[in-house]
Amino acid sequence: MKPRHILQSTVAIAVVSFGMTSPVLAASPAEIRASALEYFEVIPSMVPAVKDNAVTREKVELGKMLFFDPRLSSSALISCNTCHNLGMGGDDNLETSIGHGWQKGPRNAPTVLNAVFNEAQFWDGRAEDLKAQAKGPVQAGVEMASTPERVVEVLKSMDDYVKHFTVAFPGESDPVTFDNMARAIEAFEATLITPASRFDQFLEGNDAVMNESEMAGLELFIDTGCASCHNGVNVGGTGYYPFGVVEQPGSDILPPDDKGRFAVTQTATDDYVFRAGPLRNIELTAPYFHSGKVWNLEQAVAIMGSSQLGTELDDDQIKAITAFLITLTGEAPRVEYPILPVSSPTTPKPATMVAN
Amino acid sequence: MKPRHILQSTVAIAVVSFGMTSPVLAASPAEIRASALEYFEVIPSMVPAVKDNAVTREKVELGKMLFFDPRLSSSALISCNTCHNLGMGGDDNLETSIGHGWQKGPRNAPTVLNAVFNEAQFWDGRAEDLKAQAKGPVQAGVEMASTPERVVEVLKSMDDYVKHFTVAFPGESDPVTFDNMARAIEAFEATLITPASRFDQFLEGNDAVMNESEMAGLELFIDTGCASCHNGVNVGGTGYYPFGVVEQPGSDILPPDDKGRFAVTQTATDDYVFRAGPLRNIELTAPYFHSGKVWNLEQAVAIMGSSQLGTELDDDQIKAITAFLITLTGEAPRVEYPILPVSSPTTPKPATMVAN
Repeated sequence: MKPRHILQSTVAIAVVSFGMTSPVLAASPAEIRASALEYFEVIPSMVPAVKDNAVTREKVELGKMLFFDPRLSSSALISCNTCHNLGMGGDDNLETSIGHGWQKGPRNAPTVLNAVFNEAQFWDGRAEDLKAQAKGPVQAGVEMASTPERVVEVLKSMDDYVKHFTVAFPGESDPVTFDNMARAIEAFEATLITPASRFDQFLEGNDAVMNESEMAGLELFIDTGCASCHNGVNVGGTGYYPFGVVEQPGSDILPPDDKGRFAVTQTATDDYVFRAGPLRNIELTAPYFHSGKVWNLEQAVAIMGSSQLGTELDDDQIKAITAFLITLTGEAPRVEYPILPVSSPTTPKPATMVAN
Repeated sequence: MKPRHILQSTVAIAVVSFGMTSPVLAASPAEIRASALEYFEVIPSMVPAVKDNAVTREKVELGKMLFFDPRLSSSALISCNTCHNLGMGGDDNLETSIGHGWQKGPRNAPTVLNAVFNEAQFWDGRAEDLKAQAKGPVQAGVEMASTPERVVEVLKSMDDYVKHFTVAFPGESDPVTFDNMARAIEAFEATLITPASRFDQFLEGNDAVMNESEMAGLELFIDTGCASCHNGVNVGGTGYYPFGVVEQPGSDILPPDDKGRFAVTQTATDDYVFRAGPLRNIELTAPYFHSGKVWNLEQAVAIMGSSQLGTELDDDQIKAITAFLITLTGEAPRVEYPILPVSSPTTPKPATMVAN
């Protein structure tokens, strides 16, 4: 069975070969580059424009404070950075996140790095952008377990936050809102990009930054069909595909209860459909898949081959593709740890107790 | 009853009056400064020397990584910074900390800021310095719940950490040790000082940085006897005193089960004895006392007056002393969030499950 509907659902497809290519360079670097540029884009090194939300210096500064502020959670212990750790590839390197009351979340935390380039947010794409996404974990009972009302009460209780909101959202009569919290976080997150990966340097014309194995891996990534779903500036993060289009992986890796995008669209064809994972910095964000059950990148590549492409990749191919994926690691954003406003007597007290 | 043994147990006492001084300046700024300099020292703006542990750039850099690395905990979720949040005054602003498995710790987390100047670490002084302290929470079952063996296994599994230990501890044949982890963290923590508070500027000769109420508060702080225990560079953090030397506060504030330093010395006179809290940045580190039961700084001042000094401070006095305490807030250290080494296939997996 050929994964036909994958091909139909992406626009960036050129010629895709499912033949077994051995990891020996079949083309010149220039030819490989030309082929790659049909699928991928160099990542911008500048902050990108964000829809309906100008990325201003004031918003970014406020958003950084909010991103690191555990008081957005009802326990005052969990911040965005807890699960999207900027020192660890923008995620928590756990199978699934641990949240309020040490509850285990349902899915692996996606990286916040370069997330601004994704078509939509969450594994099932249920948030159309980062400002929509930012409102989710704050309210989720298993994550930060707060409410919009509580967050606004927390933020309004601190004069320094009120000042920051006022300058970040000038002209608004009531700038401290849950919406604006999300907008500021989105603006900060738009700065969390990782430019200058070796792959980007290669795309820009530098042959010396990737070795033969890595270039062979890139060729294989295109020729075996990986790039059919994992393409664009984030090498993924656009388009929705069934996990197991050819052959479903075991229930350890694809838990039967999590039907993915079906929960968003209530459409039978969206059973076990997920957004294609963005692969930049994938080396930094084990464990893999929405279930977080696979810790080894080579194993993840092998599973993708069999489940999505119906291809049993051999060891050399797996190693070459993995070597290519490691060239996607870019320069991490440098962030000064923010000094947060001081709680005031009217700041709601932490709610660390958990109902049984 | 006069708190005689407090007076006997400090050396820096000059003339102490327990009379009710109203918060009106009884002396000139120069006289107040002269009196203050008998009790307090300007905080150094440079990294201090640390006993048996040269503070090198390489050690500080490594220590910063370790301080922020949640993989020092068995869950890979809790770092030193979780409870000693550098954006929030160097503590967690919780009554008592939440640790592994959402367990509640027994005491309020002390600030890490300026901790290098304390005579000893922990509320009961059971660690003689920060390198001894750093080993505690890592192993405590209710905090990070790891072991020295696991920590070393974690650190040795990452080449980048091995390199950092090798340059930070040159000439050592096996530099990646639990001891050296603690030394590196101590070196980083020695950089976490908060210079240039308004109080320091006043001590240095600037009359304009403190207003009359704050100077009156400083006078009261000395004259009523607060400075008998809270003195030195950290305005506390040296010497051990019973909580409730004159009158024990209620069991809500002084829980009967926590006998403080008694657990360290097994000496009956150390019942409910604790290290005098260091008061720098006290504005940032509510709630107060080892129990963390008092959220309001004025209330904490009033309790200290009655329990330690046998003095019912009036509202004006409480406000003045509190105003003085707020001048102790210094410049927070600026820290670039560290990019951590990537876990390898041999890094022990997070142990997020908790035995019931």
